[in-house]
Amino acid sequence: MQTKKRRGKFITLEGGDGSGKSTQSRLLADFLDESAIDCLLTREPGGAPGADEIRELILTGEPDRWDAVGETLLFYAARRNHLRLTIWPALDEGRWVISDRFSDSTMAYQGYGNHLGEEAVRKIHDFSVGDFAPDLTFIFDLPAEEGLQRTMGRTHNEDRFEKMDLDFHERLRDGFLEIARHNPDRCVLIDAMQSVDTIQQEMRAILKTRLIP
Amino acid sequence: MQTKKRRGKFITLEGGDGSGKSTQSRLLADFLDESAIDCLLTREPGGAPGADEIRELILTGEPDRWDAVGETLLFYAARRNHLRLTIWPALDEGRWVISDRFSDSTMAYQGYGNHLGEEAVRKIHDFSVGDFAPDLTFIFDLPAEEGLQRTMGRTHNEDRFEKMDLDFHERLRDGFLEIARHNPDRCVLIDAMQSVDTIQQEMRAILKTRLIP
Repeated sequence: MQTKKRRGKFITLEGGDGSGKSTQSRLLADFLDESAIDCLLTREPGGAPGADEIRELILTGEPDRWDAVGETLLFYAARRNHLRLTIWPALDEGRWVISDRFSDSTMAYQGYGNHLGEEAVRKIHDFSVGDFAPDLTFIFDLPAEEGLQRTMGRTHNEDRFEKMDLDFHERLRDGFLEIARHNPDRCVLIDAMQSVDTIQQEMRAILKTRLIP
Repeated sequence: MQTKKRRGKFITLEGGDGSGKSTQSRLLADFLDESAIDCLLTREPGGAPGADEIRELILTGEPDRWDAVGETLLFYAARRNHLRLTIWPALDEGRWVISDRFSDSTMAYQGYGNHLGEEAVRKIHDFSVGDFAPDLTFIFDLPAEEGLQRTMGRTHNEDRFEKMDLDFHERLRDGFLEIARHNPDRCVLIDAMQSVDTIQQEMRAILKTRLIP
């Protein structure tokens, strides 16, 4: 569906909650700014007005408000809006886009964590996104207990997924590792137990080798 | 996915805006009440708290707020919620359910009206609904100009689809006719140019023949 060549580069950061993705996204955007690369920092779910309204629907309320099928449809409705109104226009203008979460999160959370399976989620992905994909994906890996511990202190109301149990977070971690194994050209695994500084240096080095001419 | 046998019967009314579905749904529910059949009258998009919030997202705002892909995902997210929390529990209790619109609307509006195609919409349908289907579907047929004329006087803010042009409504009508042709066992075509009374008598007669033992 989207075979079109986009001018800018698209970089995604993936992993469980508490793995440091948001901090690292901001630091990476700073680095691109310093490198005089015009860059847009965004995040999922959300990143466009319609997608933000869907984010609100998905992330608030009781854990059983949506089942995995419903969640997958909502995440992809938000993603489609995000792509069409934010990501694709920016890339077409030659800007780079960094997104804190993208499709791999739906595959890991709903496909693996909630047992929908790889094939079912892939069908919804193909319908919604076509063959468009990130140029580079950093997958932040962290033991499940560590991620849960790190998010425990957070006080906010977008906590539907943080409330899920340890087993779920174990399947989630395995899902992300599986995705990294299946997509070695696109994905780089990051050991999220390292310091903020070490991780950012590693990411910048990878970016320079892979994407900056 | 849903091979389970449900105890109640599921009846849907489909067709363009202004075709009289809502009035006829209410009259049909009255008839079931009089026949001592416990019945739930519902409608799409909506029919459950989460689905109603999605309805609000879909139906309000500018016509280009969502594209056809995004709409299809939102309609099915709402439908999944409607099935899981309203329709399936009622059928399992032995109640009958009448729904003003269901899956055929998405096929007609997004699949045919918006050119997504039958196969693409079917994939999302299978993911969301499995092989569950209505026991009986009435498809209200009306010339496109007539439907547009009938809705023109309405004043409400859920008018995103009514704002689409005549060509769209022509494709929509053809889509519904196509669906009726492809599903002769499930679908009955209703000439919506007839009087309210004539239509209701026809529907009751069909219901008696097909569903009431």
